[in-house]
Amino acid sequence: MSFETLTTDTSDGILTITLNRPDRLNAFTRQMMLDLIAAIDMADTDDDVRAVIVTGAGRGFCAGVDLDMDDAFTEAKVDPKATDPAVWDAESNRDWGGILAMRLFNCLKPIIAAVNGPAVGIGATMQLPMDIRLASTAARFGFVFARRGIVPEAASSWFLPRLVGMSQALEWSYTGQVFGADEALAGGLVRSVHAPDDLLPAARAIAREIADNAAPVSVALTRQMMWRMAGADHPMQAHRIDSRAIAARSSSADANEGVASFMEKRPPAFPDKVSADMPGFYPWWSEPGWHEKEPK
Amino acid sequence: MSFETLTTDTSDGILTITLNRPDRLNAFTRQMMLDLIAAIDMADTDDDVRAVIVTGAGRGFCAGVDLDMDDAFTEAKVDPKATDPAVWDAESNRDWGGILAMRLFNCLKPIIAAVNGPAVGIGATMQLPMDIRLASTAARFGFVFARRGIVPEAASSWFLPRLVGMSQALEWSYTGQVFGADEALAGGLVRSVHAPDDLLPAARAIAREIADNAAPVSVALTRQMMWRMAGADHPMQAHRIDSRAIAARSSSADANEGVASFMEKRPPAFPDKVSADMPGFYPWWSEPGWHEKEPK
Amino acid sequence: MSFETLTTDTSDGILTITLNRPDRLNAFTRQMMLDLIAAIDMADTDDDVRAVIVTGAGRGFCAGVDLDMDDAFTEAKVDPKATDPAVWDAESNRDWGGILAMRLFNCLKPIIAAVNGPAVGIGATMQLPMDIRLASTAARFGFVFARRGIVPEAASSWFLPRLVGMSQALEWSYTGQVFGADEALAGGLVRSVHAPDDLLPAARAIAREIADNAAPVSVALTRQMMWRMAGADHPMQAHRIDSRAIAARSSSADANEGVASFMEKRPPAFPDKVSADMPGFYPWWSEPGWHEKEPK
Repeated sequence: MSFETLTTDTSDGILTITLNRPDRLNAFTRQMMLDLIAAIDMADTDDDVRAVIVTGAGRGFCAGVDLDMDDAFTEAKVDPKATDPAVWDAESNRDWGGILAMRLFNCLKPIIAAVNGPAVGIGATMQLPMDIRLASTAARFGFVFARRGIVPEAASSWFLPRLVGMSQALEWSYTGQVFGADEALAGGLVRSVHAPDDLLPAARAIAREIADNAAPVSVALTRQMMWRMAGADHPMQAHRIDSRAIAARSSSADANEGVASFMEKRPPAFPDKVSADMPGFYPWWSEPGWHEKEPK
Repeated sequence: MSFETLTTDTSDGILTITLNRPDRLNAFTRQMMLDLIAAIDMADTDDDVRAVIVTGAGRGFCAGVDLDMDDAFTEAKVDPKATDPAVWDAESNRDWGGILAMRLFNCLKPIIAAVNGPAVGIGATMQLPMDIRLASTAARFGFVFARRGIVPEAASSWFLPRLVGMSQALEWSYTGQVFGADEALAGGLVRSVHAPDDLLPAARAIAREIADNAAPVSVALTRQMMWRMAGADHPMQAHRIDSRAIAARSSSADANEGVASFMEKRPPAFPDKVSADMPGFYPWWSEPGWHEKEPK
Repeated sequence: MSFETLTTDTSDGILTITLNRPDRLNAFTRQMMLDLIAAIDMADTDDDVRAVIVTGAGRGFCAGVDLDMDDAFTEAKVDPKATDPAVWDAESNRDWGGILAMRLFNCLKPIIAAVNGPAVGIGATMQLPMDIRLASTAARFGFVFARRGIVPEAASSWFLPRLVGMSQALEWSYTGQVFGADEALAGGLVRSVHAPDDLLPAARAIAREIADNAAPVSVALTRQMMWRMAGADHPMQAHRIDSRAIAARSSSADANEGVASFMEKRPPAFPDKVSADMPGFYPWWSEPGWHEKEPK
């Protein structure tokens, strides 16, 4: 597949997605949202993809929404003073960053962000539903929305406090300051900081560790179990799902191979595939539609 | 306005609230709850207030509830063995710290706690629904409730684990130990520690950063979006709200000014006011009454 | 009481539970689940127990489920492809680690894990519903499930992200790597690391601090308030419960003693007992049965 706004490369089980509008510091457009969703769809259906890396071409990661676009955020134009709920609930109102975030949330493969340069606005918030973030020393982050007169988007009010704590999330979002990799590390936004040339190798080493050692069906189930329990009110909800998953997986061919390879001290060769071998209770949730989750 | 238990000062967009019973280390009383609520009401309705700082007069921040008061915690006296739910659900049962916490939760302006000295009991828990906490080296904190035979109040069982993690919240609450600024910093309760004379300047620098750069309506929406998503079970709830907010704000006068000032590399002068220009879908929630949220 | 798979010792208010299959590195069995549940039942009903420490005999903490057992995880064998919900919802499907986790979640005494050596699989996840974790320099941790072809269990998808953040939880669970005490400390899984001979004394010092200073009924209420608010959607839920608890406890004999001992600068001697003096509104929740919480 080829894309207008990004390039993709799959090798040794790792899909690398590179945002590719380097002359615009990879600024975000509606087409980039569509391309990223299509690339994630591709990752989910391709059993050769065991992990995904997202990075940027040139010196930027993603400099935010492209302000040259007519329809920079949503399809709709809404009168701020509208009081009719139907106006606000029109599907055309959906924020494009949020549509992307919902897709990333549902992904079945681990996603690693390798932040090579400036990541501002949607360039910062699109990373939050990814699983692991690494930064180059050249990375810069900014939740700059309040400085532009708008608000944090891409469901970042849900994701950011869960990643960095409420106080850090609020301070970054109130001031809108752009900050460097060291502050991102200290605040818990990224796991590690690397020299620019070491960034992709470090991201690949984590992806490698997963691809070489972890059963793909186990990883896919784990991703959905953890993200979906983030908002669950009682651990019984987790107990119900992981009981099903343990019952299903402990009699699987993968479990036999996992124990055998461990006993024999050799790398595992897991036979089960995400495309064919997800257990019969998956998906266990009913994904909320645009109208179904009343906001709090 | 003048208050019995605190002083207020608004200058350059910053409202400073100073707890002012220095001979009692600013011990908490029912009147102090009423005064703090009135001061926050004032902050919310005064467009000149862009950020709020809360600190203490003299050498203390707040030494806990004033034990000399007859009705130190609640209006009601309840038989501990009562089993009639109506007894427990009487509105007169409401903990005063919690009434204050619910008001702080609903505030539309950023609140920065500048903890200048001992902050014990309600002096510690009243800070938790504030957004950002800074400590002087002279600050001391204590969730001392179990040592006094009572329990954490002011809804701190909801707030504290979300700020410092479950294990740290439990350890501080089980032992009831009083601890210093360094432990508060290491545990994530405060963002930074300062020499006593540097505390208010540091708090003001953050408030300044917000007041000079962030659109007030954006900040007010951000505060409610983030705090209210803390308990939301699915990111779709955030996507629904931030879509509305982006749709409303991206066609606002503030957004024009935000982009123009950015392009022109000059400070922004945002025209929209919290008192008049909140979008038509605000408030998007129905605030639970005392009887409406069944506890878990 | 005596147990097949563990030893117990109560002295000076501290119950120490020692996993005791040292020739198997204390590998987990169904009997160990039953024994641990019985020991926690004992802790809850014995007013002499003010805190619980869990550790391992010999050089291991718990090396995971005993793979020599026929029925290593659950009673049931389920066809992974089954699509009938009734198959998945059979109570015989319940993961034993999760049954233990639900019991630990409901415990009324503080639980401190003193991790003396390898803690892998259920040996790692059983610690998560405990309150405080300390590690020896000899400790090693591994959420190795994906390497064995299975998934994280014991409701760890609910607990682990709440303790260490989503990204760290996912990275440990995706790679399945075994890691040392230093990484556990840096990631927030343990509060402190100790030389092997200092581990139990450090755990006992925390237990001592609680036993000597905190009112047992206050501690029991605090434990349930904090864990149960972890998933609550609005702080009003906490305000309702802590208002009841403050109203009940502030007129208790313990509160009189707590204030008197503080004023007289002497250790408190709290008269109220967990076995007899929990307030009339306790328990305030209806514990979800196996079938009652729809997973998300």
